[in-house]
Amino acid sequence: MNSVNGYDIEDLKVGMSASFAKTVTEADIVLFAGVSGDVNPAHLNEEYAKTTMFGGRIAHGMLSAGLISAALANKLPGPGTIYLGQTLKFKAPVRAGDTVTATVTVRELVVEKKRVVLDTVCTVCGKVVLEGEATMMCTSAKG
Amino acid sequence: MNSVNGYDIEDLKVGMSASFAKTVTEADIVLFAGVSGDVNPAHLNEEYAKTTMFGGRIAHGMLSAGLISAALANKLPGPGTIYLGQTLKFKAPVRAGDTVTATVTVRELVVEKKRVVLDTVCTVCGKVVLEGEATMMCTSAKG
Repeated sequence: MNSVNGYDIEDLKVGMSASFAKTVTEADIVLFAGVSGDVNPAHLNEEYAKTTMFGGRIAHGMLSAGLISAALANKLPGPGTIYLGQTLKFKAPVRAGDTVTATVTVRELVVEKKRVVLDTVCTVCGKVVLEGEATMMCTSAKG
Repeated sequence: MNSVNGYDIEDLKVGMSASFAKTVTEADIVLFAGVSGDVNPAHLNEEYAKTTMFGGRIAHGMLSAGLISAALANKLPGPGTIYLGQTLKFKAPVRAGDTVTATVTVRELVVEKKRVVLDTVCTVCGKVVLEGEATMMCTSAKG
């Protein structure tokens, strides 16, 4: 582990996994709209949202992506590592009240470059709502 | 345009572009930590962050990604369209006080599938801090 309790690249093995789960609330959606500036009526206007294919307001896709960021930054590989990239495929809507579980799993290690690639998925009641992959730069026990 | 002032797929042309800019504040970073659950000390702990390569606290990368979401959802292609996917490469840190400009530019149209691919970039004072591409499903004037 590094000085802030994150994993050094030498600590990681393919298949290691961690999860972070959070219930997405109406407050989260309103705050995310303010922070991001994304005020699309699909997120904020129930009367409009009822007329869409989703039948009501949905959370911002990038809000669920934030939970992937949390799983990576807090747990695996954790503090001290640097976020280099992320791919995201939005598969299904998330609504206020849904509990989203973000799971990250080590898929590939490039030890000499201190890089790790992780599969990243968000689920609600076991259903995939978001998937993709993350690339992180880790600390090294060798400095 | 569709009924909520977004572009139908038939309205779009390669090269069309739109931007959304927002000053990222300390309040945004604190709120994003709460909404996402990403409480990495690089974002929240100045004493720790001073010891890192960035020399101080930085905003969450996914917060800048939220501004791309805003440019897409509010402007181009705008309301009524559906976010299918996004790639993100984090190139440089964003700090409280930085004004981030997210610019989205139509790169490819697949009219029969109602799909549009856009180049997406975030800059601070002209320097690229985040880049990638978005895939959206649009409405069609043909229903």
